[in-house]
Amino acid sequence: MNDRFAPLPDPPYYAVIFTNQLAEDAAGYGEMADKMVILATQQDGYIGAESTRDINGLGITVSYWKDHSALVDWKKQVDHLGAQALGKSRWYKHYNLRIAKVERNYSGPEGR
Amino acid sequence: MNDRFAPLPDPPYYAVIFTNQLAEDAAGYGEMADKMVILATQQDGYIGAESTRDINGLGITVSYWKDHSALVDWKKQVDHLGAQALGKSRWYKHYNLRIAKVERNYSGPEGR
Repeated sequence: MNDRFAPLPDPPYYAVIFTNQLAEDAAGYGEMADKMVILATQQDGYIGAESTRDINGLGITVSYWKDHSALVDWKKQVDHLGAQALGKSRWYKHYNLRIAKVERNYSGPEGR
Repeated sequence: MNDRFAPLPDPPYYAVIFTNQLAEDAAGYGEMADKMVILATQQDGYIGAESTRDINGLGITVSYWKDHSALVDWKKQVDHLGAQALGKSRWYKHYNLRIAKVERNYSGPEGR
């Protein structure tokens, strides 16, 4: 295990699944993403996040939250930053966002 | 939008969030992963999947299912293939698996 994995608290808790394709010109994206992460970690109810992106710019970030109100509070912060509005118009070619309630979780492989 | 995004049916439906770190020696992993995808697409209740992996081998695959029983059926198929057992002992350095019920979804950015 390393720090790219989020903790596994006892369910239920919430996941925000954000799948996104970066545009060819995504200048400034890295800075904005860093700010969003800092905002998340400062938020009450933030559990952690898992994030990866391939060389073609397809990224998946899943952030985890203690309850639904915690993720709503975070969304307000992000809106305030203006990141979301900017992202819509500039950084993302396409994205899917899903809010889901985690019912079960486990990790593996056993014995490592 | 491209074919790396899964459809967004009306919630609720289920997501299996699989975050995994490949081992340094992951020979044979690609073939197994291909087989698992084929099994999924043949399964009743399969909606789609989104998957990406960075150059350090950190991958996130989220598969989407019409209901909980559909994903349980798929898990049985995967077990039968033996992929899961092999993966535990060989391909994955670590993984987190979460089963979550999608309550809300949307896509963006608007106007593209």
